[in-house]
Order: sequence, then C-alpha cells, then structure tokens
Amino acid sequence: MPPPAPSSAAILLVGNEILSGKVEEENARYLVRELRGLGVSLGRIEVVPDDLEDIASSVRALSRRFGVVFTSGGVGPTHDDVTLPAVAAAFGRGMVRDPALEGLIRSGMGARLHVRDLRMADIPEGARLEYGTAEGAPSFWPVVVMENVWILPGVPSIFRRKFEAVRELFRAPPIYSRAVFSREPEGPIADLLDAVVAAFPAVEVGSYPHIDAPDYKVKITLDGRDQRAVDSATAELAARLGAAVVRTE
Amino acid sequence: MPPPAPSSAAILLVGNEILSGKVEEENARYLVRELRGLGVSLGRIEVVPDDLEDIASSVRALSRRFGVVFTSGGVGPTHDDVTLPAVAAAFGRGMVRDPALEGLIRSGMGARLHVRDLRMADIPEGARLEYGTAEGAPSFWPVVVMENVWILPGVPSIFRRKFEAVRELFRAPPIYSRAVFSREPEGPIADLLDAVVAAFPAVEVGSYPHIDAPDYKVKITLDGRDQRAVDSATAELAARLGAAVVRTE
Repeated sequence: MPPPAPSSAAILLVGNEILSGKVEEENARYLVRELRGLGVSLGRIEVVPDDLEDIASSVRALSRRFGVVFTSGGVGPTHDDVTLPAVAAAFGRGMVRDPALEGLIRSGMGARLHVRDLRMADIPEGARLEYGTAEGAPSFWPVVVMENVWILPGVPSIFRRKFEAVRELFRAPPIYSRAVFSREPEGPIADLLDAVVAAFPAVEVGSYPHIDAPDYKVKITLDGRDQRAVDSATAELAARLGAAVVRTE
Repeated sequence: MPPPAPSSAAILLVGNEILSGKVEEENARYLVRELRGLGVSLGRIEVVPDDLEDIASSVRALSRRFGVVFTSGGVGPTHDDVTLPAVAAAFGRGMVRDPALEGLIRSGMGARLHVRDLRMADIPEGARLEYGTAEGAPSFWPVVVMENVWILPGVPSIFRRKFEAVRELFRAPPIYSRAVFSREPEGPIADLLDAVVAAFPAVEVGSYPHIDAPDYKVKITLDGRDQRAVDSATAELAARLGAAVVRTE
C-alpha cells in the first residue's frame, strides 16, 4: 500500500456528550471548512465515546490510512479524558510526563494547582509539541502531535485557537470547484453524468437533488486540483445538458 | 461476543458533500436527538465518501457491533449513489429489483419516468421494506432494511419524514439524566469524581469544563437507565462536592 497523501485527512471526535446530543458539535463543522480552504481532502470523520479501546482502534486505523488525523476532545484531567493514553496505546507506546507542559501548567495555575492537573502534562512517549505561529508565546499551550495524529481539545474556543496556530502547516494545492444547475431531475441526466465522469477521471462529480429550489432540480458539482480539467469537465457537462442548464458557477 | 443490545445504534453518513463542507450536515444532528429521546444509546457516527468499498466496510463493522445502523445518503439514481449496492456487498448479497418500489416509482413519475429512475427500485437481496406508521399510505416510500441496517436518504426533509414513520419501532427504556454544576474546576474534583464513578458502575459520569459560564466551572452529567442509581449517584456526588455545588438539575 502506498503511503497516504499528506494532503488527505481524517477527523476523530471523542466524547459521549456528542453521541448523546448533550452538546451541539462545533469542531468538525469548523474543521471541515478550514481543511477545504487549505486544500486538504477530508476522507473520513468518526465520532466515538470516551472509551480507550474505541479511540485507540480508530486512531490506529485512521493514522495508517490518512496523511493527517485530527482528534478533538478527551484531554482534561478527569476519568473520562482518555484520548492521550488511547493515542499512546494505538502506537504501542507508554505515557511520559512532558517537562515543558508541566512548566506551563505550574506557571499558569500557580497556587490553584492540583496534583490531578499535572495529568494534562502526560503525553505519549515519542510525541512532540507543535507551537506553529504561536512559537514563543509564553502562555500558549502547544498541540501534542504523535506521528501524524494531532491532538486537539474539545472546548470549541480552544480548539480553534490551537488550530489557527498550526493551520498553515497543512496548506496544500487548492481544490477547484465549479457547479452546474440543471432544470432536469436526476433520472434523465444520469447517463450523461456517467459520460462526463468517465471522460474526466481527475474530476470528482457530485449530483445533488434540491427538492425545494425555485429554478433548478439538481446541482452538479465538479471538483479537482487540476483547474483546467475541472473547467473542461464543466464545459463538457454544460454542452451535454444543453437547454437543461439553468446556470453555471 | 454477545449480540449487540437492540437499544444500541450507529449512524453512517454517506457523502462527499459533507466531507468537503459543501452542505451543512443536518441528518445526524437530528437523529442524535431523536435516538436519545427514544432511549437508544448511540455508540458511533461515521462519515464516509461516496465510495462503495468504504461504505461496505463501515456497514459490515457497524452492523456486527450495534443493534441497529442508520445510513443517510447515496440512494438516488446517479453515479455517486452507491449506498444500496454497498450494503448488499457488506452482506455478500446481490441486488434485485423490488416490484413494490418499481410500482411506486412508475405511478409517482408517470410520463416523466426515465429508465435510470428504476435503479432506485434495486435493493439488496433479502432486504425488506418497512412502512411503520405510514403503512397503507399509497405514496409513501418505505424504508429499505437489510438485516439491522436501515437505509435512509440524504435529503433532510425526506430523511425526517421517513424516520418519523418508523421511529416508534426503536423505543427503548428511557435514559435518565441529571447534572451537577461545580464552582471548582476539574483538577480539584477529579479524585472525587473517580470515587463516584467507581461506586456507581451503572451510571455514566461526564465532566465538562465550561470556560465561559458565569457561575460554574464544570458541568457534571450523570446518565443511566436505572433512575434510582442515577439519583443516588447525583446525591453522592453533591454530598462529596459540598460547598462547590452551584446547583443540581
């Protein structure tokens, strides 16, 4: 199996609170758009409970298959925070206390420090700390990275702040996207879509019926990293659709 | 391995458009809350692209592990609609044209019928049609069910209409939920949470820091099907937290 493309990614959301509907999930929604803007192809999202075995098996599988894996949640000091040991287990590693993180916790908490807080300084053996653009900012809590797994917190405001510090590390060639709107529904245009799909293997063609749209029945999207191929496929599709085209974007 | 509990579920969302951020995901958000209200424990959510192998391997794994699996998306007549053949592949079955579905398509579309539309009448061999409360409603498109996999469409309004027709089939004993709000942060209360977790194995305890809440630092949730155990665990936790309790719900 060839190694996964560095510009392919997966997201692993950890937390019973998402599966029980207690919180409205925000981090994947944010990260999906960010990754798209960065030109990173997101290949899979998984949401799992606060369970070490569940998290570890997902991390192991996703890490082998995708260039980068982002986890969200399960990094605090309580019993239900098991993401870091799960990532360690996924790679067959133990946990070690990181002196830089311990220093950040001690200086940040001062007299309020509780011994359990220091658990947040325990990271998988062999993991590294990534500061991104926050390098040198004294109170910035770095991202813990184990192999290709980037471990982010569940609290949305902190998730975003940390991702923003490292986001430019993931920039890839952009994904171009075009769209054609058809007044014909999917059935009559399906064969013609097949022909375009076959003629442009580097272009990803999606067909989306919109039952409530005022002036069209189907939105067809055409995506790819090769702008010329995307434009050619769009032109070819529009020509084949003929009078069924409402507009092209 | 014991068979999975009938009241455990997984959701499989199919669609490149979710992974690329082209659409805001609505079906999982809706179903998560519905399942909770029905007393069904949701154990996992996966989002995969419109890829037959990807879908089939997820269906196979989820179907073995959970009592029921709901899929969303990939059921139209175009090239990117591969959920039904993927479910067939997951169970090692072929596809067959279902006469009831064919009749519904023919009568619903009349003269607008295109041969490709009939693909939507092709279902996995051995699948059954479930009408739920819409039994007898002549234009209702039933849910295709293969073993414990319930195949729902991606268009949110249709997804909801179909789920509503079958939802009562999934009703399970309710999950009780209580909450305790702590003015102390997670570090100092972590040991005490451990004690409550250990004393009440039937209660699921979650600890959620809220950095922007005006009057508390942590929301602790206590969930379970045994109401007495949940109430006892809540009382025990409140007693141990003492003056740190802001309020109990």
